[in-house]
Amino acid sequence: MPHITLPNLPGIRGPMAFRPETSKPLNELVEVLLRHPNSLSQGERELIATYVSAQNNCHYCQSIHGAIAAAHLDGNEELVQCVKQDFASADISPKLKALLVIAGKVQQDGKKVTSEDVHAAREQGATDLEIHDTVLIAAAFCMYNRYVDGLATVQPQDPTLYRERGKMVARNGYVAANLTNVAPVQAAELVAS
Amino acid sequence: MPHITLPNLPGIRGPMAFRPETSKPLNELVEVLLRHPNSLSQGERELIATYVSAQNNCHYCQSIHGAIAAAHLDGNEELVQCVKQDFASADISPKLKALLVIAGKVQQDGKKVTSEDVHAAREQGATDLEIHDTVLIAAAFCMYNRYVDGLATVQPQDPTLYRERGKMVARNGYVAANLTNVAPVQAAELVAS
Repeated sequence: MPHITLPNLPGIRGPMAFRPETSKPLNELVEVLLRHPNSLSQGERELIATYVSAQNNCHYCQSIHGAIAAAHLDGNEELVQCVKQDFASADISPKLKALLVIAGKVQQDGKKVTSEDVHAAREQGATDLEIHDTVLIAAAFCMYNRYVDGLATVQPQDPTLYRERGKMVARNGYVAANLTNVAPVQAAELVAS
Repeated sequence: MPHITLPNLPGIRGPMAFRPETSKPLNELVEVLLRHPNSLSQGERELIATYVSAQNNCHYCQSIHGAIAAAHLDGNEELVQCVKQDFASADISPKLKALLVIAGKVQQDGKKVTSEDVHAAREQGATDLEIHDTVLIAAAFCMYNRYVDGLATVQPQDPTLYRERGKMVARNGYVAANLTNVAPVQAAELVAS
């Protein structure tokens, strides 16, 4: 049971509906980081978010972002599992592996990221913007994970729920998906437009 | 030296000027959490941000938010130091102490917050909104701290720099203060208006 009285929605959607003033920038941040045009694909960025959330042991975030990642990656849920468990052996690019090393250090403590880690990512073709965004995605999920867990939000176990919503968010984005928390008609119009 | 090429600004201001698309929601979030009207005073909220940043050992964030807190608290830098080192003995309200217990748990792992911690805060008069905002402030500073440290930003040692900027931010807010990174004329107009 959540620590405070929240709207009956799973994970971060409960506190986001409870406090629209903070959910606006929280949604905008994830939309820019994970959805806006970028030389890292949406699938790659969702894998970074999923990996960090798994390292933080946040069930809701690793499940929903894992589902969104899979939706971007032709439904390849095995790849998502492999990245969570042992990304070094996963079928992903050497550049993404080098960025996941940086993300894993940020998850523990930003000060653990070394010049060597950054050099290794550059050797695999990572740009300054990609390194910046990797650090900020990892840092941001250290926030989202703590927000979700720190309020003891409802975190369903059924993977079907995450799979369905994952497809919807992959299609429509975070801002549109979360409008359904508060204004279903407006969201329907946005999706239709 | 920062891990990537950043504008020559201290702490978070470097990456914020590097990536305006993400700095907009990052600034808006901290403005809502630490500045907007709230039953927790601005000084109290800055103390929570300072305490979490100190627990994360982020020099820039604990220095600037400590300075902003002091500016809100009649320049009482000793109180800020006391909260960082041992808040249980600080001259702050029992409610704020109970909220700092929750913030300290969130800094480690959201799952560490217990029903007893939340009950103890309620016993001291904390509302659901205050508990929510405490959790989100603590979570957000786990992001800001990692962002600042993970990119190895420039973090000056001179307390005078923080004291001066702390007064300015306490007066004008985060959004206005950070406009000076990119558009000094516009910021001057905003401050004058």
